[in-house]
Amino acid sequence: MHALHHIFYPGSIAIIGASRDPGKRGFRSIQKLLEDGFKGAIYPVNPRETEILGLPVFASLADIPGSVDLALICTPAKMLPGIIAQCGVKNVRGAVVLAGGFAEAGAAGELLQQQMVEEAVRQNVRIIGPNTSGIFNTHAACNIVGFSHLKTGGIGLLSQSGNMALSLVTEAQANGHVGLSTYVGIGNEADIRFHEYLEYFREDPNTSTVIAYVEGMKDGQRFLEALRRVARAKPVVIYKSGRTSAGRSSAQSHTGALAGDYAVSEGVLKQAGAILARKSDEILSLAEALSLLEPIASRRIAVLADGGGHATIAADSLTEHGLKLASLSDSARNALAAILPASAVVANPVDVAGGTDSNPAVFADCARILLADPGVDALLVTGLFGGYGVRFSQALTLIEMETSERIAILHREYRKPVLVHSLYGGLYADLRPRPLALIRERGIPVYDSLERAVRCLQALAEFGEARRRPMWSGNDLAARSEGFEKVLATCRREGRSVVLEHESRQALEEAGVEMSVPYFVAANTDEAVAAFKTLGGAPVAMKIVSADVIHKTDAGAVKLNLIDEASVSGAFAEIVANAQRYCLLQCGRLPDIAGVLVSPMAPKGGIEVIIGVVRDPSYGPVLMFGLGGVLVEVLRDVVFRSLPLMETDAYSMLEDIRASRILDGVRGALPIDKDALVRLILGISSLCTAFPEIAELDLNPVLAYPNGVRILDARILLDGDASGVGIGDRRMREEEYVATT
Amino acid sequence: MHALHHIFYPGSIAIIGASRDPGKRGFRSIQKLLEDGFKGAIYPVNPRETEILGLPVFASLADIPGSVDLALICTPAKMLPGIIAQCGVKNVRGAVVLAGGFAEAGAAGELLQQQMVEEAVRQNVRIIGPNTSGIFNTHAACNIVGFSHLKTGGIGLLSQSGNMALSLVTEAQANGHVGLSTYVGIGNEADIRFHEYLEYFREDPNTSTVIAYVEGMKDGQRFLEALRRVARAKPVVIYKSGRTSAGRSSAQSHTGALAGDYAVSEGVLKQAGAILARKSDEILSLAEALSLLEPIASRRIAVLADGGGHATIAADSLTEHGLKLASLSDSARNALAAILPASAVVANPVDVAGGTDSNPAVFADCARILLADPGVDALLVTGLFGGYGVRFSQALTLIEMETSERIAILHREYRKPVLVHSLYGGLYADLRPRPLALIRERGIPVYDSLERAVRCLQALAEFGEARRRPMWSGNDLAARSEGFEKVLATCRREGRSVVLEHESRQALEEAGVEMSVPYFVAANTDEAVAAFKTLGGAPVAMKIVSADVIHKTDAGAVKLNLIDEASVSGAFAEIVANAQRYCLLQCGRLPDIAGVLVSPMAPKGGIEVIIGVVRDPSYGPVLMFGLGGVLVEVLRDVVFRSLPLMETDAYSMLEDIRASRILDGVRGALPIDKDALVRLILGISSLCTAFPEIAELDLNPVLAYPNGVRILDARILLDGDASGVGIGDRRMREEEYVATT
Repeated sequence: MHALHHIFYPGSIAIIGASRDPGKRGFRSIQKLLEDGFKGAIYPVNPRETEILGLPVFASLADIPGSVDLALICTPAKMLPGIIAQCGVKNVRGAVVLAGGFAEAGAAGELLQQQMVEEAVRQNVRIIGPNTSGIFNTHAACNIVGFSHLKTGGIGLLSQSGNMALSLVTEAQANGHVGLSTYVGIGNEADIRFHEYLEYFREDPNTSTVIAYVEGMKDGQRFLEALRRVARAKPVVIYKSGRTSAGRSSAQSHTGALAGDYAVSEGVLKQAGAILARKSDEILSLAEALSLLEPIASRRIAVLADGGGHATIAADSLTEHGLKLASLSDSARNALAAILPASAVVANPVDVAGGTDSNPAVFADCARILLADPGVDALLVTGLFGGYGVRFSQALTLIEMETSERIAILHREYRKPVLVHSLYGGLYADLRPRPLALIRERGIPVYDSLERAVRCLQALAEFGEARRRPMWSGNDLAARSEGFEKVLATCRREGRSVVLEHESRQALEEAGVEMSVPYFVAANTDEAVAAFKTLGGAPVAMKIVSADVIHKTDAGAVKLNLIDEASVSGAFAEIVANAQRYCLLQCGRLPDIAGVLVSPMAPKGGIEVIIGVVRDPSYGPVLMFGLGGVLVEVLRDVVFRSLPLMETDAYSMLEDIRASRILDGVRGALPIDKDALVRLILGISSLCTAFPEIAELDLNPVLAYPNGVRILDARILLDGDASGVGIGDRRMREEEYVATT
Repeated sequence: MHALHHIFYPGSIAIIGASRDPGKRGFRSIQKLLEDGFKGAIYPVNPRETEILGLPVFASLADIPGSVDLALICTPAKMLPGIIAQCGVKNVRGAVVLAGGFAEAGAAGELLQQQMVEEAVRQNVRIIGPNTSGIFNTHAACNIVGFSHLKTGGIGLLSQSGNMALSLVTEAQANGHVGLSTYVGIGNEADIRFHEYLEYFREDPNTSTVIAYVEGMKDGQRFLEALRRVARAKPVVIYKSGRTSAGRSSAQSHTGALAGDYAVSEGVLKQAGAILARKSDEILSLAEALSLLEPIASRRIAVLADGGGHATIAADSLTEHGLKLASLSDSARNALAAILPASAVVANPVDVAGGTDSNPAVFADCARILLADPGVDALLVTGLFGGYGVRFSQALTLIEMETSERIAILHREYRKPVLVHSLYGGLYADLRPRPLALIRERGIPVYDSLERAVRCLQALAEFGEARRRPMWSGNDLAARSEGFEKVLATCRREGRSVVLEHESRQALEEAGVEMSVPYFVAANTDEAVAAFKTLGGAPVAMKIVSADVIHKTDAGAVKLNLIDEASVSGAFAEIVANAQRYCLLQCGRLPDIAGVLVSPMAPKGGIEVIIGVVRDPSYGPVLMFGLGGVLVEVLRDVVFRSLPLMETDAYSMLEDIRASRILDGVRGALPIDKDALVRLILGISSLCTAFPEIAELDLNPVLAYPNGVRILDARILLDGDASGVGIGDRRMREEEYVATT
C-alpha cells in the first residue's frame, strides 16, 4: 500500500480552524463531508466553538478522543509550525495546509515554510501544500476542497491551479459522463512533491488516468522518473502552462515555481511517456478518451461519414494530426458497396451518401466491415449520428439506440477504438439525443468537435507508441573514463571551467564516440607541419586551443584550407600572434595557449546540425538536437530530451524536428547516416550522464554526411562558469570549416 | 435592391413535387413554412394530389392563380429542364433545385445540367443548386431547407455542405444566443455562383456577418473581387476545406469542385479581407464575436483573471495568437492597487487574487480601469465570473448580474471589445448561470474555452486590419509594353512558349523593375569579351540563352567566376559546345541558341528568396514569395497573394513567412532592403497583370541585400506549355552564382 494511501482514504479527518461561517472553508468542508456521506469520523477543532453542523467541536487536536489520519488546516500561515507540531503529537498522517503567505510570498514566507517542513519531518507528518486549494477523493467521499457536483470516476487530477481544477470539474459536470477519482492541489510542494502524487496515482486502484496541470515543478528529474513508470501503466495527460515568455512571467508571479522553456518540457515529458495537451480546452477530452479506449497500434484510421463536408474535414484534420486514412481492403470495399447506395463513396473516408437516412442501423453494418478490416486501427464516425431522430423522424431514435448498442458491442469485440463525432454532440441536458447518451454510457466517447475527436485519436496513437517504448536498462552507460577524470583534475587545478577542444574530443572518444578524422594539437610550427604531413597533405584547418580565447574566429585564431607546408607554418605563427593580441586587448594579459589544433578540412555537402547539452534548472541535463544554420535558428527547429537517452529517443529526435525530411535527402541528395548521428548522440548522453560535472556541451556545427558525421567544433563547460558560451552564442559557421576546393 | 432579393424574400412559393409523405421534403418544407408563419402564398404542385396540410394542390405551375417568386423543386434531375421552362412561363424568379445527379455525377449529368442552365438563361429564371440542401431566410419566415429551431439573427451562411450548415445551426441552437439570417446551400453553382450570393449578403439589411464553408469554387477570381467589397462592410468568416491532399481528394469525390492548394487559398482569401477559420469548431464562435464586437485597432489586450492558472494560460494563448499583453499605464496600476488586495497582481494579466471572492462587483471596477487605459484595445475577462453564485454563495448571483449590466455599459461606453471566458460558460439550459446569460444578451460573448476566446480576439484584430487596408486604385498598373508585345509576337512566330532570360529581364524592366546590374547577350566570343570589359573586368557569370536548354547547370552551360578575358573566351566556347551536346543527347537535335548571357557575379551575403507567379485554376494569377534554399523548400515557408498586388500586400508577404525575422537581420546582419524587394514584387505583379499570356514566371533565386536586390535567374513561360519548369523544379542554387572571391 502506498505511503500516501491513508491520507487519501482517511479513516478520520480533523478540521483545524473549523468555523460556523458558511462562507468559510472551515464550515463548507465539514458541510461537504456530511453531505457526501463521509464514512469516517469528522473532528472540528476550534477553541472558541462547541458545535458546528451538529458535530461537537474540540478545543485542540489533543482533545480528540480517536486517531486522526488527515488534518485540514484552515488557519493563517503564521500558526503553522505550531499546528504541525501538534499534528505530530497526535500521529496525524497528512496535513492539508490551505494558507498562502509561504515561499510564494517572499523571503519571510520562505523561512516560515522551511520551519514548517522541518517540524513536519521531525514529526513524521506529510504536508500537502501549503497554498493549496485542497484535495478530494470521490471514492472515499472525502471532499475537503468544496467543489460541488462531483461525479465518481477514474480520472485523477493534479493541479497547480485551483481554478484550473475547478474548470475541469465543471467541464466534467457539463459533459455529464466523466468522473474523477482524486484531486490534489499541489500548492508549493513544500513537502510532498509532484512525483510522489504521481506515484501514488499509479498505485491507486480507483485511478485509471491522470491529468496534471503543471506550471513548473521543483524536482523535474524525479518527476520524469516517476512519469516513466506511471505512463507505462496509466495514461498521463499533462498541460504545461507558461509556454511563452509572457505566460512564463505570469506563472512566476503567481506561483514562484520556475516554469522552464516549453520546448524542453515538451521534449522531455513526451519522452517520458506523457500525453501533452496543447490547449486547456482539450485536457478533459484527452483524459476521457484515454480512460475509455485502447491505445492505437498504428495510425491507420477509418472514417465513416454521412456527408461530404464532415468527410473532408475529417480527412484534413487526420492528416494535420499526423494520422493516416486507412487503405480499405478490397473485401471491405465490396462489402460496403453491397449495402450502400451507388452514390456512396466506399473508399476511406466512407460517405454513406444518404444510405443511412431512412435506416441509421446501416452505421453499425458499416462499422462492422471497417473494424473487421485488418488495415484499420480505429474508427471515427462523423456527422449526424445520434440525431437522425431529431433531424428526420422521431421513429429513427429507437433504431439509433439499437445501433449504439451494436456499435458498442463491435467496439468490445474488435478491441479497436471507436469515437463518435456528432453535430448533436454539443447538446446537453434535455436536448441531448438519447442514442448519444447511450453510446457514451457504453464506453464510446462522443464529441461535438470533429477536430477534438481527431486530437483524441492522435493521443491514443501517442499513448500506444509510448507504451511500446522499451524500458531503460541502464546498463549501457559508459563508466567515468580515467582520461576525463584527469582532465577534470587538471581543470580544477588550473581553476578553469573551459575544457579545451582536444580534451573535449578525447572525452567523447572515451565515451564511445568514433572521431571520423584525426586531429593534432601542435605546440609549435614543426609539430603543425608534421601533423599536416601525417594527414597526407590534404587541406587542413587550424585553430587556437586556449581556454582564454572563446571567440576564435573573432580573434583571427582560425585558419582554413591550408594546402602546403609553408601555409601551415605561417598559419601557426599568425594564429598564435592573433590570439595573443586579441587576449591582450580583451583581458589585458597574454592567453594560456595549449597549442594549435590541426585537422583536415571537412568535405562539402554535409548537412549542418547542432547538438548540445545543458542543465535545465528543473529537469536536469537535457540534450538538444537541431539543424544548424541561421534559418533554423530563426525558426527554432530544435528538440530536447532528458539524459540518459535510449537509442529510440535519439532516433525520435531526428524525426521530431520539423525539417526532418532534409535528413532523408531532398533534391536528389542521399540520406544522411542517421545511425552515425545516433551513435554520436548516445555517446554524448553517456558522457554527460557519467560526468555530472559537465554543465554544458556544445558540438556546433556537426556535419552529417551519407557516410558518417564530422564534428567541426566541440566545447565542454564545467560547473562554475557558464558565461557567454550558451547555445545561442554561435560564431562558428559551416563555411568556415568546409573545404572549398 | 439586389437582383436576388425577391428570391430570398419571396412573396409566394411553389413547392414542385409536393408530397403527403411526412418523410419527404415536398411535405416538410410546406409544414415548416406553415409552422413558421410564412406570410406569402404557398402553392403545392403535384398532379396526383388535391390537398396537403390543408392547402389546395395545383396540378402544374400554370394552374397557380397568383404570381410565384420562388419555386422549390423536389423532383428528380431528369425532369428539370422541362420544369425550368414552365418556371419561365410563370415568370418564377428563382428555382431551388434539390436533385443530385447533375455535373457532380459524371458526363451525362453534366450535359443535363448544361441543358437546364441554358433553359434558365433563356427563361430568365435564376437557379440555386442543383444538388443543394435548399435555403432559408429567418427574417422572411421562409425556411425551405427544413432545419428546426432556427433563431432569427444576423449571420448569413453560405455552404457547400448541407451537413456543415446543419452543424452550425445546431451549434447555434446549443449556444442559445446566436441567430442566423439567411442560408444558401450552394450546390453545383450551375447558375448563381458563390460571389453572387456574397454580393447579395452585402446588400441584405438583415445580414451583418457572413459565414462561408468552401470546398472549392467555380470562379475564384470573381469571388475574390466580391469578397474585397463585402469584407470591407461586413465580416466574412471562411472555412476552406480540402486543406491537405487527403482532404482534397475527399472533397473532389464529393462535390466535383476543384479544391485548390490551401496555401494559395489562405493567402488570397486573407488578402481579400476574409477571416479564415482553421477549424470547423471555431467557425460559429468567430462569426458570433465579429457580429457582436467592434474590430480591434491594435493588438494590445488586457486580461482580467481571478486566478493564476487562467492568467497564465491567457498570456500563453495571446502570445501564440500574435496578440500582445497591453502595458498598463501607471495610473491604471495605481487604481487597481487601490481596490485589490495586496496579493493581487496589478500588472497585465491582472490577477485579483481573491479580491472578487466576496464581491464580484470588483470585476466591473477593474474593467472600467482597464478599458479607460488608452494602451488597452480590448479586454478579456477569464476565470469564474458568472459562477460566483454557484461556487461561493447564491447571494453573489445578484451582484454578478449587476456586474454584468455594468460591464455591458462600459463596453458600449468605451467601444472596445470585451470578451468573457468563464469556466461556467459551457453549462447550458438550466445549469447556465444567469449572470452569463445576461451579459451575453447585452452583447458580450461568453466562452467556455479560453483558447476560443483568444482566437476570437485575434479575429477582431484581423478584421480591424482588413478594414484599414487601402482600396485598390487600379491606376498604377503598367500598360502593356511594346517591347514585350514584340517578344510575344516572336514567340508565337517561333512556336515557343519559353521566353528567354534576357527577354524576361527586359519585360521586367519595361514593367518598372530596376535591374541592379547590367547584363549582355553575347552572340560570339568577341561580344562576350567586350561585355566582360564593359563590366570593368569584374568576375562574371555566363550561361546559355536557349529555349531548348532548360536545365542549364545540368547541361554544363553555366560558367561562374570568370576573371579574365581568356577564361571568358574559353567559357563561351565551352558553354555553346556543352549546350549542343546536351541537346543532341536529350532531344536528338541541335538547340536554337540566342547567345550567352554575361553578367557580373553577385556579391556574397545576400539572402536567397524566390518569387514566382502561377495561374491558379480557381483564383487566377497568384504570386508566391518565400525564402530560397533547400531547407525552406522542406518547410514550405511560402506565401501567396492574388494579382494585382498593392504595396501593402507586398509588404505583408515579407512579414507573413514564418522565417520573416531573417529579413530583418539576425546574428548581427543588416536588414535587407525590403523596399527594393517590394518594388520588384510590384513590378512582377504589374507585368503579369498586363500580360495574361504569361502562364508562369519564376525568379529563382533572387538575392536580397541591405542595399537592393539581384535577380540571378529569370524565366517566363507563356500559355500553352508549362512542362517541367514549375516552381518546384529548381536546379539553380545560390552558390552557383555568388562570387566566392
